[in-house]
Amino acid sequence: MAIDREVYLDNAATTYCNGEVFYAMQPYFITNYGNPNSLHQIGYTAREAIENARASVAKIINADPDEIYFTSGATEANNWVLKGIVAASPIKRVLVSAIEHPSITETARWLTENGVEVDYIKVDENGIISIPDLLAKLSKPTCLVSVMTANHEVGTVQYINTIANICSKNNVYFHTDATQALESVHINVKEMQITALSLSGHKIYGPKGVGVLYLKRGTPIETFIHGGYQENGMRAGTYNLPAIVGLGKAVEICMRDGNTNNTRMKQLRDYLIKEIEAKIPGVKLNGHRTQRLNNNVNFSFQGISGESITAMLDTMGICASTGTASTSEMLSRSYVLQAIGVNDDYINGAVRFTLGRATTKEDLDYTVACLVNVVKKLRALSPINIKTEVSENV
Amino acid sequence: MAIDREVYLDNAATTYCNGEVFYAMQPYFITNYGNPNSLHQIGYTAREAIENARASVAKIINADPDEIYFTSGATEANNWVLKGIVAASPIKRVLVSAIEHPSITETARWLTENGVEVDYIKVDENGIISIPDLLAKLSKPTCLVSVMTANHEVGTVQYINTIANICSKNNVYFHTDATQALESVHINVKEMQITALSLSGHKIYGPKGVGVLYLKRGTPIETFIHGGYQENGMRAGTYNLPAIVGLGKAVEICMRDGNTNNTRMKQLRDYLIKEIEAKIPGVKLNGHRTQRLNNNVNFSFQGISGESITAMLDTMGICASTGTASTSEMLSRSYVLQAIGVNDDYINGAVRFTLGRATTKEDLDYTVACLVNVVKKLRALSPINIKTEVSENV
Repeated sequence: MAIDREVYLDNAATTYCNGEVFYAMQPYFITNYGNPNSLHQIGYTAREAIENARASVAKIINADPDEIYFTSGATEANNWVLKGIVAASPIKRVLVSAIEHPSITETARWLTENGVEVDYIKVDENGIISIPDLLAKLSKPTCLVSVMTANHEVGTVQYINTIANICSKNNVYFHTDATQALESVHINVKEMQITALSLSGHKIYGPKGVGVLYLKRGTPIETFIHGGYQENGMRAGTYNLPAIVGLGKAVEICMRDGNTNNTRMKQLRDYLIKEIEAKIPGVKLNGHRTQRLNNNVNFSFQGISGESITAMLDTMGICASTGTASTSEMLSRSYVLQAIGVNDDYINGAVRFTLGRATTKEDLDYTVACLVNVVKKLRALSPINIKTEVSENV
Repeated sequence: MAIDREVYLDNAATTYCNGEVFYAMQPYFITNYGNPNSLHQIGYTAREAIENARASVAKIINADPDEIYFTSGATEANNWVLKGIVAASPIKRVLVSAIEHPSITETARWLTENGVEVDYIKVDENGIISIPDLLAKLSKPTCLVSVMTANHEVGTVQYINTIANICSKNNVYFHTDATQALESVHINVKEMQITALSLSGHKIYGPKGVGVLYLKRGTPIETFIHGGYQENGMRAGTYNLPAIVGLGKAVEICMRDGNTNNTRMKQLRDYLIKEIEAKIPGVKLNGHRTQRLNNNVNFSFQGISGESITAMLDTMGICASTGTASTSEMLSRSYVLQAIGVNDDYINGAVRFTLGRATTKEDLDYTVACLVNVVKKLRALSPINIKTEVSENV
């Protein structure tokens, strides 16, 4: 099959930078390039741009601007919040879900090596946090619970409100990594009683290299990056001015266009799920069918490997992923799929399709047509005989 | 006096982003926006761009590409190298100079609070490291010495080769923060036996939000930012692709145009020093007269404050600084000027003028004319009677 089109279905790995965002950033590279900490006109202009972006970010999650700290990305924010809150607390115990992003799980592993007790909250077969397990684990003194708003691989959206409320009632800090979720999920940190929240620019059509830690005013935390007196002495390093401006604009676009984008994305998502299930036998939808990100479709294809499928799709112009870009170099079994109990027949065959603002129905039709061929070819090469529950002619 | 022109003399705080750099970055925002860790075509394109940038950075300091790690900036690189090398070493003692940037001194303070012994190497009245003091302090077991290549406030350039050699002979790791120095000072990490070196994009006409830690192959270091498997598992977080491409281009321009830029900058620097000394009485050049950055001019004006001078210059369109942008919010006495022994008459009156590629002789003539007026006015308001050793009509 010739490459008919370029189809980018890896928007959970990174999105393109929106044109409006790019044009908002542009002047801050070349003309308004000042250091926001400088006490002169070009510095003041830069500072004002930073504070405008901070106000936008605060608004979308209903925080106050002085509770917003700019970082180099969600990974830094996740490192900071886990290490920093534990360092400032006398209680050296944290709970995280079993399916967090590596920036939480690897930080948790480091904490374990440094004398902190880390316990992992169970999830069910759809990737939903077990509330009984959370309650049981909160019976021991705990300083912080961290549960992502939505999973990066299987797209499951947690009942964050419930979890945050339980933590609040138990006087335990609650952090959520909302990196994948900002446009899909409505978050109100004040109403939901969320202590801390991480965000990233490049998952919401903003620039790479910028993120946010929201931290509820008065929460004790140790500084992670030491140096100059930026961010009220909480995060050192020259402000990434254009990127922060771009993040502010990206957030404004989410607020302006979010409803429209979400409605459209959800229709496309459900269309892709329906088409794959109708046209390809031996498939399993990973994650929750409805309680999932509007742009996430994750299927396991029985008996064949996700790497082979994505590699072949790539030759047809389709960019998809086996899971998370952060672990692509490791090529190990997905710990997320293991945690939700995907069985051996399916665990190596997962492919994640994450839709974006540019995705069309035609892109998905092309993808499904390619996928039908790819799966057929790979299964013909496979020594395992696949039970075909669905006719391809349906 | 009306504002005749805009004169930006704060290039040590941050530089504008070079047009060539901006145009090199542009496609990586909008079209080649992939995640370099993704295993598909748009990911491979991104990865190739990262590796090209890495090769350029390696070349300018004569490192190998696999010794270059991208960070969010020099502040992160400085945090990482100090905390990471000490964490991986059984010897919990480091030496830093008394005039390091806050990203080193504040990190050192944090190390002290966490049980590490930190000792400060003395500098002379020009800001040059005392070699006898370094040797004396190396008599106790030490894991790391960190001395900046050139000072951010007074511009003094250290004899890095000598210091690195001494460290090497004593089997002590040597790190240098070369943030201010990359274009001015020729650095060869292999010949000079440098273990680690920090760089920043936005001091060399590249983008903000990106930096580098060079780390000699095989040097034990603990990871600072945990998460995904980027940078061989050494630094997690999605690559800041456009900024890394921009940093690569900025470094290439330094290699291509460095000699020309340095010659021109040095002439302008010496012209400004000569003009200020000729036309304004009661001034003191801070830092070494010749062993200094090609673009740094730092003067103390007797009896008046640097803040007043820069504030008045700002109303005339001239952007200068009292010291470092990183500490501008603190408005405290410069610890750098204290360390080099600037006396009470002069210590509050320091102004740093840092020239850039766009600076012209006319800019400097305008600056000196404004400065003559500003100093005269402020001294007229000052209760202290200034001895005027230089006639203003010279």
